[in-house]
Amino acid sequence: MNREQNGPHRPLLADLTDREGEALCAQLRQELVEEVSKTGGHLASNLGAVELTVAIHRVFDTARDRLVFDVGHQCYPHKMITGRREAMSTLRQYGGIAGFPKPGESGHDAFIAGHASNSVAVALGMARARTAMKEDYKVLALIGDGALTGGLAYEGLSNAGECGQQLLVILNDNGMSITANVGGVAEHLAQQRLKPQYLTFKKHYRRIMGKTWVGQRIYQFTHRVKKALKQSLLPCSMFENMGFTYLGPVDGHDLPKLTRILQYARELNEPVLLHVRTVKGKGYLPAEENPDAFHGVGPFDPMTGLMKKVGGDNFSAVFGRKLTQMGREHPEICGLTAAMMGGTGLGEFARAFPDRFFDVGIAEGCAVSMAAGMAKEGAIPVFGVYSTFLQRSYDMLIHDVAIDHLHVVLGVDRAGLVGEDGETHHGVFDVAYLDSVPGMTVFAPSSFQELEEMLERAVLEIKGPVAVRYPRGGEGMYTGSSGSGPAVLLREGRDLTLAGYGIQINDLLEAADLLSKEGIEAQVVKLNQITPLPTELVADCVRQTGALLVAEDCVASGSVGQRLAAALEEKQIPARIYRIDCGQEFVPHGAVRLLKWDLNLDGPGIARRAMEVLGCVK
Amino acid sequence: MNREQNGPHRPLLADLTDREGEALCAQLRQELVEEVSKTGGHLASNLGAVELTVAIHRVFDTARDRLVFDVGHQCYPHKMITGRREAMSTLRQYGGIAGFPKPGESGHDAFIAGHASNSVAVALGMARARTAMKEDYKVLALIGDGALTGGLAYEGLSNAGECGQQLLVILNDNGMSITANVGGVAEHLAQQRLKPQYLTFKKHYRRIMGKTWVGQRIYQFTHRVKKALKQSLLPCSMFENMGFTYLGPVDGHDLPKLTRILQYARELNEPVLLHVRTVKGKGYLPAEENPDAFHGVGPFDPMTGLMKKVGGDNFSAVFGRKLTQMGREHPEICGLTAAMMGGTGLGEFARAFPDRFFDVGIAEGCAVSMAAGMAKEGAIPVFGVYSTFLQRSYDMLIHDVAIDHLHVVLGVDRAGLVGEDGETHHGVFDVAYLDSVPGMTVFAPSSFQELEEMLERAVLEIKGPVAVRYPRGGEGMYTGSSGSGPAVLLREGRDLTLAGYGIQINDLLEAADLLSKEGIEAQVVKLNQITPLPTELVADCVRQTGALLVAEDCVASGSVGQRLAAALEEKQIPARIYRIDCGQEFVPHGAVRLLKWDLNLDGPGIARRAMEVLGCVK
Repeated sequence: MNREQNGPHRPLLADLTDREGEALCAQLRQELVEEVSKTGGHLASNLGAVELTVAIHRVFDTARDRLVFDVGHQCYPHKMITGRREAMSTLRQYGGIAGFPKPGESGHDAFIAGHASNSVAVALGMARARTAMKEDYKVLALIGDGALTGGLAYEGLSNAGECGQQLLVILNDNGMSITANVGGVAEHLAQQRLKPQYLTFKKHYRRIMGKTWVGQRIYQFTHRVKKALKQSLLPCSMFENMGFTYLGPVDGHDLPKLTRILQYARELNEPVLLHVRTVKGKGYLPAEENPDAFHGVGPFDPMTGLMKKVGGDNFSAVFGRKLTQMGREHPEICGLTAAMMGGTGLGEFARAFPDRFFDVGIAEGCAVSMAAGMAKEGAIPVFGVYSTFLQRSYDMLIHDVAIDHLHVVLGVDRAGLVGEDGETHHGVFDVAYLDSVPGMTVFAPSSFQELEEMLERAVLEIKGPVAVRYPRGGEGMYTGSSGSGPAVLLREGRDLTLAGYGIQINDLLEAADLLSKEGIEAQVVKLNQITPLPTELVADCVRQTGALLVAEDCVASGSVGQRLAAALEEKQIPARIYRIDCGQEFVPHGAVRLLKWDLNLDGPGIARRAMEVLGCVK
Repeated sequence: MNREQNGPHRPLLADLTDREGEALCAQLRQELVEEVSKTGGHLASNLGAVELTVAIHRVFDTARDRLVFDVGHQCYPHKMITGRREAMSTLRQYGGIAGFPKPGESGHDAFIAGHASNSVAVALGMARARTAMKEDYKVLALIGDGALTGGLAYEGLSNAGECGQQLLVILNDNGMSITANVGGVAEHLAQQRLKPQYLTFKKHYRRIMGKTWVGQRIYQFTHRVKKALKQSLLPCSMFENMGFTYLGPVDGHDLPKLTRILQYARELNEPVLLHVRTVKGKGYLPAEENPDAFHGVGPFDPMTGLMKKVGGDNFSAVFGRKLTQMGREHPEICGLTAAMMGGTGLGEFARAFPDRFFDVGIAEGCAVSMAAGMAKEGAIPVFGVYSTFLQRSYDMLIHDVAIDHLHVVLGVDRAGLVGEDGETHHGVFDVAYLDSVPGMTVFAPSSFQELEEMLERAVLEIKGPVAVRYPRGGEGMYTGSSGSGPAVLLREGRDLTLAGYGIQINDLLEAADLLSKEGIEAQVVKLNQITPLPTELVADCVRQTGALLVAEDCVASGSVGQRLAAALEEKQIPARIYRIDCGQEFVPHGAVRLLKWDLNLDGPGIARRAMEVLGCVK
């Protein structure tokens, strides 16, 4: 990391005038729209954060000061300002720059981001370390109002408010979720604060008063009076009560104002919460008018805002449709989401059964505990959630759900490699962690039809915790159903057994075709259920072929391949066993096709590995 | 479950007069002290909840209404009232009643408890299910102020406040953590509310006003005025802002008052938060004077309050002592706890380095995210945490720590079976879930000396995430050190290889002794590191003996035995492999010795299994 630990403090945009800064904002905004219209990515939230980001870089030196993003959907302007403007054309592409902050990419990226609500806790850790290491850089956390719904943000804020040292939390409020706490009075106070003479007065006042005992007492007294007054005017400032000095709300598109309040906040040696109000999609009309649609986008026409049509169906939509259909006949079915209604395909269910659909905010742990309570009382909760975010619920799955073997249904979306969102978002751990949950059943459909069948079994037949895991996007060449058995032999062959599950089965079938052309006859076993692991069929197959190759897009630890190897060993079946998986490495971002190619998880890769293990490669 | 779904509502203690209720409280309190002085358990918080529990059972029928405990340290009086008074002598003992609420034990226990902060989310799920299933019982959550520090509680409260239906959250406030938000004004309001005529008036007022359109408008207007007035008097009621009707604070030892406010709260068809103030240890002087010492106790003399001395050292104390010693030489070492300073042995470190010690509250996720931020900036954070509670941090370990391979050190206490706290507390998952975290190193010391050596390596040598896992309590017969190799051959033998780690090694050595008497010579391999798993030595051994038996107190999925089996299979080492572990079942409560006996994890059990697999048992 290229960071000047104690070098001179020089913000990258320190020399810009207000006017030049505003011009830069306009340029950045235009480039943002142009680049993202080609690569796809998160647009609306980045458009809303342009002035804020420029203001931050006028006041803070992110090579030295630490700017921690939450989630990271607002980091593109930051990337552009910190040496990655040219590289924006490679955004989220294999080998290109990441769509999220990434310390390995730049010393200006203080920390990884992707999952929500951790930024304040991380920034607090940095502030603590700064003090322990006797350094004096500034620490900032930039968090959106959505991420505030996560309990981890509350934990971070509770602890940060008490830390008594410099820590600036910038709340980028582009929604309505926290506006109830602030009103006209707060606006007025914020105006007062922004008057330059007030800021100067306050700074001098603090400095002078701090120097003598009497001064300190007077300062403390007037501070207390002011606080009491403010609290009686502001119905409730949760942040003040937590120990923060609250600044704002301030218009997040007024660059001069933003810059000045940041300059003021920068000098406060205490926990400060700066409340900034922004408009999602700001400055690009299609995004302003439809911020949700422009939250995460594929390529679109920058002139019209028209999105390129994505052809065909996808697993999320099939999940939502099937659940809605079952919901009509079974009034005990309830749908749950953690702020991902659209992404998980649950919109239709929500519209059909508004009384049985619950969005808990970015709070996956709460969703699972709540589902456990529902299941205990006879409802059938179905929680649609991305695999990577379900990691937050690991303890609740064990403690709240599994101990009493409660019938909680998980629709585990984005399981396996997710592509462009990269290392923070790949769903490569659920195969392992769900298997460790006692009494859990995990189904792995390979097609839309199988998703429907398995979801129906999960909801209506299975007892206890059950997950149906399916990937992002659409199915491949394998369609239809392989029946309700836990494993099925899709293709006969005498030379080698190939085994897998989910849409990976497409690559196994392709590999078998390729091998066939080389005169090698590979069996293909498809696992419909991966927890508890059905081992009989695989054992029978391996007894014939003597060799097993398992391919799967998950980490090696706890993988089906590892578990199959252990099971075959215990069954005393002599066989050569080989595994292709993600190892214990994080998989970078890029098109799934390229990632699979890189990991040898595509058809040719699997065929090549099969040839190797059979000794057919020179 | 023996629950009348729609039967008549009849609280168990409905017929008691105030006077009789107070007499019952005195009896319960006396029995509590007597029983817990024999069995050990959680005393102080239960003593504080006697009147509250009796009041609840005067007003609610827990066979029908759902009372969800948080953590469950306050459930003994409830157990005594609901048919388990006699059984208190078997509390926490193998085969006896559990120390935590347990639906399998009684229909009056609405939900499992043990881990913190989930009660409101669970209760909300129950309330949602009640509505979906068109039933009409009441739902209550009983949560202590400590559990409020957990983000999951905040998530639950945020969602519950908006649910608009009957849900009573009782905040049992026996500490100081939330008193900042309530003052004399609140006390005054609570007094007003408790006047019987006020309650009656309010009930009638609501009823009458609800009947006509004009009445509703008037009611809404006066309600708004009252709310505005209250908010200007109460600086901040976080709960009101979340959507709760706030009642209290009320004296939690005034049975008549408590009963009346619960009767009032029972009639409100909306989310209500009742703030009850109690004294931890109430009514038993030694516990009132020293509530922390009497939080969780072993057997003690009920007359004097003197605890039975626990002989010798324990792993937690050794951990804290060693860390303090290293802290003197290395100012970058910081200590973290999630409200478990005493339990994790970190008290000495906290006293020695108050500026480098941080207690985040019951917020394990926050601790790990914060540690990641610290590690990113060059400090060395060491988080002392119970294995079972670290489950809450699984996502943060992957996302915040592992992606950038940050050097966060985990002191994983209470790993393996913990004994009397039972199924919610056994540390039987960390072997699996820590192994799935990329780049993780896990050490498993078997003795105090090894804990010191391994902690030193973890803190000063290892890069990236690293855990040292050690059990509750003291070491067994194995003392000293087996050196710094990842695995070591402790005992030679030609017939069978026994492998294990941690203090399980004591049982393996005992088994080897027992086998030796039967003429069977067992090798004993001790694994010092279990992630990444060292397989070379075990492979070499198994090549000689042809048979491997792995014994460990963790779940089967992701266990060392499973991983070893897979590794040997892939190395093409023909061998018979056997495993003794906890399977995929939750292990009940009881003395560790008895649990190990039950699971065949003690010396005789392992020896017996070894004889079986070698065909030496008829």
